[in-house]
Amino acid sequence: MSESPLQEVTVPLSPDAYSIFIGTDWWSGLGGKIRETLSDMSHAMLVYDSEVRSSWAEPLAEQLRGAGVRVDLVEVLSGENSKSVQRLEQIWEQMRVDRADRQSVVIAVGGGVVGDLAGFAAATFNRGVRLVQVPTTLLSQVDSSVGGKTGINLPDAKNIVGAFWQPSLVLIDTATLSTLPPRTFHSGLAEVAKYGVIADAQFFGWLEQHAEALAKADHEAVRHAIAVSCQTKADVVVADERETSGRRATLNYGHTFGHAIEATAGYWKFLHGEAVAIGMQMAAHLARALGRVDDEFVQRQHDLLLRLQLPVCWQDAEPELMLQTMQSDKKVAHGKLRFVLPTRIGHVELVGDVDEKLVINAINACKI
Amino acid sequence: MSESPLQEVTVPLSPDAYSIFIGTDWWSGLGGKIRETLSDMSHAMLVYDSEVRSSWAEPLAEQLRGAGVRVDLVEVLSGENSKSVQRLEQIWEQMRVDRADRQSVVIAVGGGVVGDLAGFAAATFNRGVRLVQVPTTLLSQVDSSVGGKTGINLPDAKNIVGAFWQPSLVLIDTATLSTLPPRTFHSGLAEVAKYGVIADAQFFGWLEQHAEALAKADHEAVRHAIAVSCQTKADVVVADERETSGRRATLNYGHTFGHAIEATAGYWKFLHGEAVAIGMQMAAHLARALGRVDDEFVQRQHDLLLRLQLPVCWQDAEPELMLQTMQSDKKVAHGKLRFVLPTRIGHVELVGDVDEKLVINAINACKI
Repeated sequence: MSESPLQEVTVPLSPDAYSIFIGTDWWSGLGGKIRETLSDMSHAMLVYDSEVRSSWAEPLAEQLRGAGVRVDLVEVLSGENSKSVQRLEQIWEQMRVDRADRQSVVIAVGGGVVGDLAGFAAATFNRGVRLVQVPTTLLSQVDSSVGGKTGINLPDAKNIVGAFWQPSLVLIDTATLSTLPPRTFHSGLAEVAKYGVIADAQFFGWLEQHAEALAKADHEAVRHAIAVSCQTKADVVVADERETSGRRATLNYGHTFGHAIEATAGYWKFLHGEAVAIGMQMAAHLARALGRVDDEFVQRQHDLLLRLQLPVCWQDAEPELMLQTMQSDKKVAHGKLRFVLPTRIGHVELVGDVDEKLVINAINACKI
Repeated sequence: MSESPLQEVTVPLSPDAYSIFIGTDWWSGLGGKIRETLSDMSHAMLVYDSEVRSSWAEPLAEQLRGAGVRVDLVEVLSGENSKSVQRLEQIWEQMRVDRADRQSVVIAVGGGVVGDLAGFAAATFNRGVRLVQVPTTLLSQVDSSVGGKTGINLPDAKNIVGAFWQPSLVLIDTATLSTLPPRTFHSGLAEVAKYGVIADAQFFGWLEQHAEALAKADHEAVRHAIAVSCQTKADVVVADERETSGRRATLNYGHTFGHAIEATAGYWKFLHGEAVAIGMQMAAHLARALGRVDDEFVQRQHDLLLRLQLPVCWQDAEPELMLQTMQSDKKVAHGKLRFVLPTRIGHVELVGDVDEKLVINAINACKI
């Protein structure tokens, strides 16, 4: 495979800006990039998903050891169940036993679960040590590894405990995507499409032109999609790091419906991105009913999602049950439903106090 | 009792400055002050030490309820054992059950244990909710409630997990000190004396003039001592919030020896402030041996601590064991001992690479 150019996206957050590097087949250069950026690191806690041990985590550990870094490994079982208090406590305890200190760096290798869990351990051990995110799934590459949200779940409450803790560096090698199940890869494309809808009409057009290349994971197309997605997320996060102005909430496009889909279908039925894709389509129908967008918008988004191999409907949806779930969501203020809705390709707004009947209709519109 | 003036110390941290209010017998005004400062609070999680339930926590809860705030109470058993992962998890879970959200405020009523534990829960629930510190011990009033350090212990590792999370407000009523055991009250005076030594010769002189008034907990003297202590701590914290420049480390004067005293004596033998007082005296002897201060310094500090009803020696000290403990302290860089040592009343410096023999001698000098 020919060498690809390394793309850099910077996240100019105060007090510490950081970079996201995106390339293909440059895994052997990751250790050097980490050493170069964090020159005073004495020790690495490499926290990785059990699925990527031999392919990605151990080779990176070897690179770092070769560069004179003391490395300790922590394996995390794949799956959302690992984002638990018990697993967090074990990681804290292992960091203590391994004498992690202020020169230590936590390196998270895996998807969103590992990034969130290891990131929260980094945010809280010794009141905060540095963090490097090495996301190996498309979803984490374009979403969770950027922006500093870390955390764990309590029973019945996802991400309810956590911290804002920005990484010092994010490293992405699209080669890791080749080892993903296709369905998992395609799921990540939902968040990519989301960035086009919420912030960048030009990118949406580019996605329409390159949907098939993306769907078959063409590296050049995927690198560009990741770079633009990270840049868009970085812009939003810089404008509203702690989700106080409402700007960051625009990232939740499709997610209010999506969370209700996941909660009522059971978390095993849809992957997160799949639920978001269906949720985006429900949101589009809702925006149409409110006269905010026309039929063409709904159709364009529908067609793009389909070409990205994503579902756009859910035959078994239970509108009333989904509505109840949405009303108990922690993001709902005083029981009033609020949605991120488009006004055109490339722009969304927060819309409050939406009529329940229109919400039901929007869900039914995708129940085919 | 006559009404006392309320003193205010501000901590001008970015992005959110906050105030510390200090008065006597103004408990009935606390709820109003909280409502006035955090006008959009919808819900309070009042976390309190079991010792102060009926005297202080329940009356405050009643005030807030009377002002229309939904209040949930969380009792924490007195003692360091409550700073555990298990207790933290229970608080997180209770906050979830009580539907704490972004308009909720955690109010910590008690000493350092409750402040650290509740503060860390506030720092991490929903990635951070607001915190009000209502310290009811002298130690927490002059030390832990100001500056934003929160956290819990792991077995064998104190404060190893935590976050920097600044309160929105700190409220101090010296009336709470009347309910403390005298020994606990006097223990807090060690940290007060410390501020004089590390940063404020004028204050040290004032302490010498008012030692007896302080020792018998005269409210006017205690208010002044708390206000100056909080101001000094605030200055240091503003200069070095995250302990990166070394300035904040000056607050550890007496603490390297003090922690070794606590660890080798067992945590039940000395109260924290007592260990710090002995530790300050050991540090003074060490500074004397290094030619940094003269005999008069050692004597003046000795006399003040004694008049504040604090211990200045420890007959059973085991110098070699204390040395080992200090060398395994997380603050020791690469095994080299580093101390905060005075050069005169009102000024300390970080001194690295100190000869072990001199450390042993300093411990022995207090072994009488």
